[in-house]
Amino acid sequence: MPALVEIQAAAEQLRGRIHRTPLLTSTALDAQFAGGGGELVLKAELFQKTGSFKVRGLLTKLLRLTDDERRRGVVTVSAGNAAGALAWAARDAGIPATVVMAKTAVPAKIDAARAYGATVELVEGDLLAAYDEIRTERSLTGVHPFDDEDVITGHGSLGLELLEDRPEIDTVLVPIGGGGLISGVAVAVKLLKPTIRVIGIEPEQADVVSRSLAAGEPQRLPTARSIADGLAAPICGTRNFPLIQQYVDDVVRVSEDALLQATRLVMSRTKLALEPAAAAPFAALLESSARVAGVTAAVVSGGNLDVAKLAL
Amino acid sequence: MPALVEIQAAAEQLRGRIHRTPLLTSTALDAQFAGGGGELVLKAELFQKTGSFKVRGLLTKLLRLTDDERRRGVVTVSAGNAAGALAWAARDAGIPATVVMAKTAVPAKIDAARAYGATVELVEGDLLAAYDEIRTERSLTGVHPFDDEDVITGHGSLGLELLEDRPEIDTVLVPIGGGGLISGVAVAVKLLKPTIRVIGIEPEQADVVSRSLAAGEPQRLPTARSIADGLAAPICGTRNFPLIQQYVDDVVRVSEDALLQATRLVMSRTKLALEPAAAAPFAALLESSARVAGVTAAVVSGGNLDVAKLAL
Repeated sequence: MPALVEIQAAAEQLRGRIHRTPLLTSTALDAQFAGGGGELVLKAELFQKTGSFKVRGLLTKLLRLTDDERRRGVVTVSAGNAAGALAWAARDAGIPATVVMAKTAVPAKIDAARAYGATVELVEGDLLAAYDEIRTERSLTGVHPFDDEDVITGHGSLGLELLEDRPEIDTVLVPIGGGGLISGVAVAVKLLKPTIRVIGIEPEQADVVSRSLAAGEPQRLPTARSIADGLAAPICGTRNFPLIQQYVDDVVRVSEDALLQATRLVMSRTKLALEPAAAAPFAALLESSARVAGVTAAVVSGGNLDVAKLAL
Repeated sequence: MPALVEIQAAAEQLRGRIHRTPLLTSTALDAQFAGGGGELVLKAELFQKTGSFKVRGLLTKLLRLTDDERRRGVVTVSAGNAAGALAWAARDAGIPATVVMAKTAVPAKIDAARAYGATVELVEGDLLAAYDEIRTERSLTGVHPFDDEDVITGHGSLGLELLEDRPEIDTVLVPIGGGGLISGVAVAVKLLKPTIRVIGIEPEQADVVSRSLAAGEPQRLPTARSIADGLAAPICGTRNFPLIQQYVDDVVRVSEDALLQATRLVMSRTKLALEPAAAAPFAALLESSARVAGVTAAVVSGGNLDVAKLAL
């Protein structure tokens, strides 16, 4: 588990290389979701480099590779955002990058990885198996998109920023895929402020973390599909799982319909072009009868929408 | 024509009642559109109250009504954004508001006007004739959405902010509907900085200002339809026209396809959920072979997208 000083060191290393994303408020969302004295703040991480939080952890990882690991080149496996982030970070660091993605990935995410200069391998079937095979065959340095200590440490920088900008935050709502973002953020905010509550949100159709918590160990789903493509990880990371067990107060499951409605709602009210994964905190609010109390931060984790689907 | 001191007084009156919207930059858009030394800055007016610039002029107008005019209640005619803005400003000022809109208006724009408490009259056919009829029959105070001196003065406040935030701006790209925004902005920036260039952009399918300039007097189109619904005004205002003649350097016409591609492009690159009208400056850049030189400001005029059309 990363120590607070390690997360702080990663944040320092990232400063100037990535964006310090703003914490925004919305009168309209407060009117809809907040009770008396309650307030929502939105961590606008969709404005991050490459359009998602992923660069925090992946750049941190690349900055810590040995010379030999760098020379061999890196490879990751991704629904899309980790691919773009790794490609961007690797180009910046002068490291050759390969990304393994599903043929069904959002085309804009595939294009982004290519535009940043990565070799893109599009596969059908078992992504993780293809990743292992390509990594081994080509002697590449594997960079797991979430099940990695350095990646978790780098993602923790987002948690530090939340409390630097608004120390009063008492609840944090974080979308969950394989558990990378939430494990880093939870460790960071709980070490700084033990009374803070951390709630994870995952799609009903890709609820590997809920199932893992129920089983007491990381599970694997046979399939995981969601309109929140960024959250459709079939596995919960072995390094992420114990951190989630220890530091996450609750994990909530949301329907596909709530994800769609939340995406439209937040876009309409805030004018942020968020992707469905980033709308997960609001999907949970839509499906809950409880009003927001205290200062609640929702992590708007990314904005890599499939804009080709925007009919006008 | 409004004097600079009048625009400054309107800006002062608006301060604290509406948002000071940010001027943003985009590495990706600069890479695509800017030449050496060139830079694009985006006036993010989609974050304005009610999601568009319209509140600037309409609130200015309401604040200057006589007691009798206020008591009678106000009415406007609108593709959508002026309706929401008038409804919001009137509620704030305690004035009853009626808005005349087309049955085919973006549903979210109709809902917004109703949510702010306005009486919404949905009509088929000639919107302007319906507006005149309703105004006369009900003895309401007519508030023209653009052909009005106070509205023009209020919109000018956006021009002041551009040069306050970035005095180096040497070109301003402004979407054109009936000419309200561009006439106010052009007067403001030209009075402050006569060397600045102001370029208007309108849809080929709703090019009433281009036609008016060619004819030497305000024209009226039999029909005006565009995916940039906010720009589909069939008339150029009689008060706006001479200001456009005097202060606008050029008016460019853009295709529907360029508007669609520009909306998707800017959303994808900046994560701003802009409406097609607001993408008009970028549609012009897409259709031009010239690269941006100097500091060019694009007014991202609104974000009231029809989010129901966002398929995921």
